[in-house]
Amino acid sequence: MESNCHFSALGQRAQSPTIARLMVTALEKPELLSLAAGFTDNATLPSESVVEAVTRLARKKDKEALQYGMNQGRPGLRVLLAQHFRNWEPTLSNTENDDKFFVTNGSQQALYLAMQVLCDPGDIVLVDRPSYFVYLEMLRGMGVQARSIPVNSDGLVDEAALGALIDGLKSSGNIARLKAVYFVSYYSNPSSRSLSLAEKIGIADGLKRAEVVLPVIEDAAYRDLYFEKASAVPSVVGIDAWQDFPKLYLSTLTKPFASGLKIGYGYCSDREWLAKMLHTKGHHDFGSAHFNQAILEEVLADGGLSRQLALIRPAYQRKMRVLHETLSEEGLLSAGWKWQVPDGGLYLWLEAPEGIDTGLDSGFCQSCIDEGVLYVPGELCFGDDSPTNFVRLSYGVLGAKDLREAGRRFAKVAVAKRS
Amino acid sequence: MESNCHFSALGQRAQSPTIARLMVTALEKPELLSLAAGFTDNATLPSESVVEAVTRLARKKDKEALQYGMNQGRPGLRVLLAQHFRNWEPTLSNTENDDKFFVTNGSQQALYLAMQVLCDPGDIVLVDRPSYFVYLEMLRGMGVQARSIPVNSDGLVDEAALGALIDGLKSSGNIARLKAVYFVSYYSNPSSRSLSLAEKIGIADGLKRAEVVLPVIEDAAYRDLYFEKASAVPSVVGIDAWQDFPKLYLSTLTKPFASGLKIGYGYCSDREWLAKMLHTKGHHDFGSAHFNQAILEEVLADGGLSRQLALIRPAYQRKMRVLHETLSEEGLLSAGWKWQVPDGGLYLWLEAPEGIDTGLDSGFCQSCIDEGVLYVPGELCFGDDSPTNFVRLSYGVLGAKDLREAGRRFAKVAVAKRS
Repeated sequence: MESNCHFSALGQRAQSPTIARLMVTALEKPELLSLAAGFTDNATLPSESVVEAVTRLARKKDKEALQYGMNQGRPGLRVLLAQHFRNWEPTLSNTENDDKFFVTNGSQQALYLAMQVLCDPGDIVLVDRPSYFVYLEMLRGMGVQARSIPVNSDGLVDEAALGALIDGLKSSGNIARLKAVYFVSYYSNPSSRSLSLAEKIGIADGLKRAEVVLPVIEDAAYRDLYFEKASAVPSVVGIDAWQDFPKLYLSTLTKPFASGLKIGYGYCSDREWLAKMLHTKGHHDFGSAHFNQAILEEVLADGGLSRQLALIRPAYQRKMRVLHETLSEEGLLSAGWKWQVPDGGLYLWLEAPEGIDTGLDSGFCQSCIDEGVLYVPGELCFGDDSPTNFVRLSYGVLGAKDLREAGRRFAKVAVAKRS
Repeated sequence: MESNCHFSALGQRAQSPTIARLMVTALEKPELLSLAAGFTDNATLPSESVVEAVTRLARKKDKEALQYGMNQGRPGLRVLLAQHFRNWEPTLSNTENDDKFFVTNGSQQALYLAMQVLCDPGDIVLVDRPSYFVYLEMLRGMGVQARSIPVNSDGLVDEAALGALIDGLKSSGNIARLKAVYFVSYYSNPSSRSLSLAEKIGIADGLKRAEVVLPVIEDAAYRDLYFEKASAVPSVVGIDAWQDFPKLYLSTLTKPFASGLKIGYGYCSDREWLAKMLHTKGHHDFGSAHFNQAILEEVLADGGLSRQLALIRPAYQRKMRVLHETLSEEGLLSAGWKWQVPDGGLYLWLEAPEGIDTGLDSGFCQSCIDEGVLYVPGELCFGDDSPTNFVRLSYGVLGAKDLREAGRRFAKVAVAKRS
């Protein structure tokens, strides 16, 4: 491509993400079954609930829902989101903090805003291991380095190794570049794992012991999507060990209700950080779609979110089981693959036997495409030192029949590769 | 505010915008009548049309409208937007360019993306005089300098002075920092003026004569909002003089249809520029609300946009006349104030007699607040060398009765200041 444009440093870094190649493959071969896309279940999307909310809004004499709204978000929705959050975090038991909530274009925009106001190119962010690959991609686009919070051989946070990592940043003179810590805490994308209370405290203690107090971003996008029982682990907002840290808690109404409405939200404990994010949001778009916020205000006020969650939680659990059982029955366990059966979320996170390379350019990946199934290579989900033998499978989109077929195709390749 | 956050360069620049003080004033004194807000008319918002579209979407077996969509925008909507654009620009008469359209969170996000991938802090952008103050604010947030395209005493683009400005940038060694040119071309915010064909050609010729070929951003947000007859002036996409320039044409479905749906769109002639903006949008939000795009696809396919425009064009014209006539009748002309009667848009752009300071901190502004009326000080609408005797009045929001009262309050202050 030729261009008479001279691009900024950010513009020059902007490259088509590696995952885009998978998407192009998916579009070119529509017969492919995708276990890659992190989309939600179509069949259970709340059409009726949305039509009812829109009809109620239209009956109001004032058509304000179709007018511009506030940059920070619709006040009535923010109050309901604060109430929803207080159901999780009884420690946040008063209403004085309602004005610390804000509404964004999915939680993705809040992640972007948080990073924009904290990080310059060359800065460093601590991330969970594995971590959300779209966030990691975004950091690369900003020229920000990700460093993994160390984990032990069981995948649990290793507080001592975290201390050593920070000591290393200090001795190399890079500690001033460390600007934030980020993790997906419930039914994580990609691992479906939740951080335990001990791990969450461990991260805070590791940082405090090294005398590093910095902003923490807890990405709780999947918190509502437990299968049977909510996690008993509080967020950083409700954990004493994190008290002195500026905290940004992010969640969303996309996955729990409707991704097409694209409404996420955040709570920020630090008023200056929040003000700077909102100022920047003012430049992005001066407010997320007000109509969608009005719809969701109706839905939350009416108990519609709880009803939708009651519907989709068992639906996702059933779909998870279909994929899990297909992979087991087709011999993946006997072929040396390992995974945890999740308690929530949208993903199975598979570890292949050492030596099997599942990367984007691997023969394994090509064989899966040839066989007609797509997955997300685990190598994309690490801030650094990526192992090449992990795979993220999503059971969000496909119905049971397609999940079975996709699982068989995947297992066929995996079992054949053993030999 | 205390904070344990260390902010990025962008974060450090983030300050509450000056206009925010006006908004706080408006919230604190609800009896104030606002001629400041650039909101649209509530009474004519298309509630029925939206309910019908949502109901049709809900009847479809596939609930894909509530699912995630594509980062670039919903394909069917993009085709309809391309058709809408070709009604204006018959030179763009084939369909090969449909994939150069993209959908954003209002046209504001497209402005942000364009600037992000072109400009580093310290860079320079040429802007119209006066220009859109939210855009100017955004540039300041990015650390980018605005320089006004010179105009003569009639407010028309001065090609010779533009050449001299560029010569000045060359001789001062700053020409490499000049990254783009931006203007609001139809029924401008704030001036309600449209650039003539000669002026548009003049800007291109002035740049070419100085051997400066750089990206141009034409903000056509108000193009649909003419009162009686569409402007015959083509956009830069249809003007030969601009042929060699990378062109970004921006418009929106917010003002012409419903601001609450927050859907804007762009056409970018330069594939590399477009790719970099889309890559960055992938990090912002990986796609604007898909549901809203599906609603608007229904509306456009059904002729609903044309019907809505046929309704609001005369409604805005009537409201413009009410405000214009009130100001005239209350003696503003005799007091030496001047303004053009617009052919479209949402604003009256008033020039006070020299010596009257209408700035945010002026006695005039305070008197208006005391009298119960708000306006946007013209000083906010200039990239540089701001005169202090302009005022932007919006007739978008208020009904006729309130417009009359607001006009009377404003004129009372203005006429009193004369003495």
